[in-house]
Amino acid sequence: MRAPERSVELTQVTEWEDGNVRSLQDSLAAEEPLEIRLAGRPLTVTMRTPGHDLELASGFLLTEGIIESPDQIANIHAVRPQNGIKSNVVEVELQDSSFDSTNLSRNFFAASSCGICGKASIDAIRNRGLRSPDRDFRFDPDRICSLPETLRAEQAVFSRTGGLHAAALFDSNGLLLALREDIGRHNAVDKIIGWALMQRCLPLARHVMLVSGRGGFEIVQKALAGGIPILASVSAPSSLAVKLARELGLTLIGFLRGRRFVVYSAGFRCLPTDI
Amino acid sequence: MRAPERSVELTQVTEWEDGNVRSLQDSLAAEEPLEIRLAGRPLTVTMRTPGHDLELASGFLLTEGIIESPDQIANIHAVRPQNGIKSNVVEVELQDSSFDSTNLSRNFFAASSCGICGKASIDAIRNRGLRSPDRDFRFDPDRICSLPETLRAEQAVFSRTGGLHAAALFDSNGLLLALREDIGRHNAVDKIIGWALMQRCLPLARHVMLVSGRGGFEIVQKALAGGIPILASVSAPSSLAVKLARELGLTLIGFLRGRRFVVYSAGFRCLPTDI
Repeated sequence: MRAPERSVELTQVTEWEDGNVRSLQDSLAAEEPLEIRLAGRPLTVTMRTPGHDLELASGFLLTEGIIESPDQIANIHAVRPQNGIKSNVVEVELQDSSFDSTNLSRNFFAASSCGICGKASIDAIRNRGLRSPDRDFRFDPDRICSLPETLRAEQAVFSRTGGLHAAALFDSNGLLLALREDIGRHNAVDKIIGWALMQRCLPLARHVMLVSGRGGFEIVQKALAGGIPILASVSAPSSLAVKLARELGLTLIGFLRGRRFVVYSAGFRCLPTDI
Repeated sequence: MRAPERSVELTQVTEWEDGNVRSLQDSLAAEEPLEIRLAGRPLTVTMRTPGHDLELASGFLLTEGIIESPDQIANIHAVRPQNGIKSNVVEVELQDSSFDSTNLSRNFFAASSCGICGKASIDAIRNRGLRSPDRDFRFDPDRICSLPETLRAEQAVFSRTGGLHAAALFDSNGLLLALREDIGRHNAVDKIIGWALMQRCLPLARHVMLVSGRGGFEIVQKALAGGIPILASVSAPSSLAVKLARELGLTLIGFLRGRRFVVYSAGFRCLPTDI
């Protein structure tokens, strides 16, 4: 866990406005590479906003199918700064000694960064064994409409930089359990899932996740890996996100703004049953 | 080159608005995996919006440092559909027969998807040999303010789905040369650079690139690979994007809205010289 101020860096910039030029201080969303090492070998590097690095690493391992339970993690730690220079490395050791480097190499291709890119075979994208989320979970549509406001009220960093994505996890009563921000949308989701993994509350069978940006394929994939039944976004989903959500019965909501939203799949969890 | 309609897929969705439910047709931004094969071996898979796949593949090869000139490409083609099923594969053969599979393997780690993620070593991010863009190029600030409107007017797909990123290339007079849209911001940039590569107009030493989303590190990296001196965005850049732009002297502009923008680096190209 890092101090929140690392999410933002201050810098001097120049503003041009209708011919007038002035110098001012601006807040930038922090972006730095994070290398995740597994059993001593580099697994992936992701560009992330520093903070909650252990959650990000463990969440990545789970959502990419490398682990299924926190018990498989024997040790996870951030490499200490050397000579005052940040290392930006998280090292993970797994319990399972049968997880050899041959598997690691294969897993790297099958589970590389950004949720989906870097996979060496398209088949690997389609054939991942993800389960359908809890079909008995219901969530009131009025309550869904209240989630973005709760998210915005909590987003301390976003308002300062305008440059961070957010992912928020809510319980069955609409209570905010965790909020994570990152320059990468997929990282914000991995941090949430990693938080849940470390809290030992996976699968998130009676939870709703709200993401600030669009709902792409990799976000749906990661939500499914966490067992989440309802994924909502203020923006538009992609065609492949909708296909995956429909195939596995995840409730995918888009354009959640004010008192309106669009349901792309599995509407039974949040719409009146007589529709 | 594909027909534009592949960028959008129609689907039936359910709208909830203040308690009222209705079914309607919605346009989704198309997202499908594209596998890029180099010398018969999988190099990377990226989630992209179909269309301009050859530009995307060749642009990726250039911006990731695998090639430096179009002459290095001996053959590039999309694998034909088999039994009516799209292949989503682009195969590339390079001229240089010394580019053996050992190098390919190393390059995969150093140049994987999303511009930056997937790199197996953080050093590889920092030590890439990118040159500073043309220091003599100047562009009028009033003209900069006119670029977003030109982009919006041309964005046929964006207005229909709300789910696509855009990258646009302008010449020294502010004339729009190329516009590409994609579910992935980095793909839209790769398509632009790939277009320029195939037009044999690299480096883009007297051009301005405008991107619709935020300016992250990988976008700056790709712009530098194309030789672009001015990169503008309607949104916020990240801390690492600013650091890289300053280090290599690329003019990085953010928050370009109406008659205002913020200059993060190398302002000499677009600001009055007496500042």
